[in-house]
Amino acid sequence: MRGGQGILFQQILVEDRPGSSIRAVVVNRLLPGCTVGLHTHHGEEDFYYCLSGEGVVVDNGTEHPFTPGTLQITRDGESQAVRNTGAQDLVLLAALVTVQKCA
Amino acid sequence: MRGGQGILFQQILVEDRPGSSIRAVVVNRLLPGCTVGLHTHHGEEDFYYCLSGEGVVVDNGTEHPFTPGTLQITRDGESQAVRNTGAQDLVLLAALVTVQKCA
Repeated sequence: MRGGQGILFQQILVEDRPGSSIRAVVVNRLLPGCTVGLHTHHGEEDFYYCLSGEGVVVDNGTEHPFTPGTLQITRDGESQAVRNTGAQDLVLLAALVTVQKCA
Repeated sequence: MRGGQGILFQQILVEDRPGSSIRAVVVNRLLPGCTVGLHTHHGEEDFYYCLSGEGVVVDNGTEHPFTPGTLQITRDGESQAVRNTGAQDLVLLAALVTVQKCA
């Protein structure tokens, strides 16, 4: 995903609909060794909430441990990536939200 | 909370900021017997994702089991409530998101 490597399973919980700012809410399951490649968000924000497993998240250039209970949010114009550094699956909830389009 | 009963602990993970559609992301921990009272959302959407425990969520008038992995989303103009029906704490992630304000 996003130019990363390895295997990821995605469960889609919420999809886009007109008028909503919520573009998607998914649960991503990264198998051991899997990464979500570095990517930048434009006109939207994205947060990852760790449900289980152990990884590292890159938040606009800075690495942080990513373990259950951690939330990482990427703001408009910022970049993110995540990798599973453990022996188990890394499972996270991700929510993609459009910024307010008018002033 | 919202006219409900019992004890709830809230951990605030994300707060409002100008330009963002995300008003808040929190983790709510409802102790046994705790309820979040029935309330309607206007100009915003709210989703609850169950992290642990066992409860019932009321989604615009319809009751559903609320157990780990369940996501319930309340759309603009709809109502929601939740109650802990188990012997353990009911823990959920909640995200409140403003709808797109312009056409």
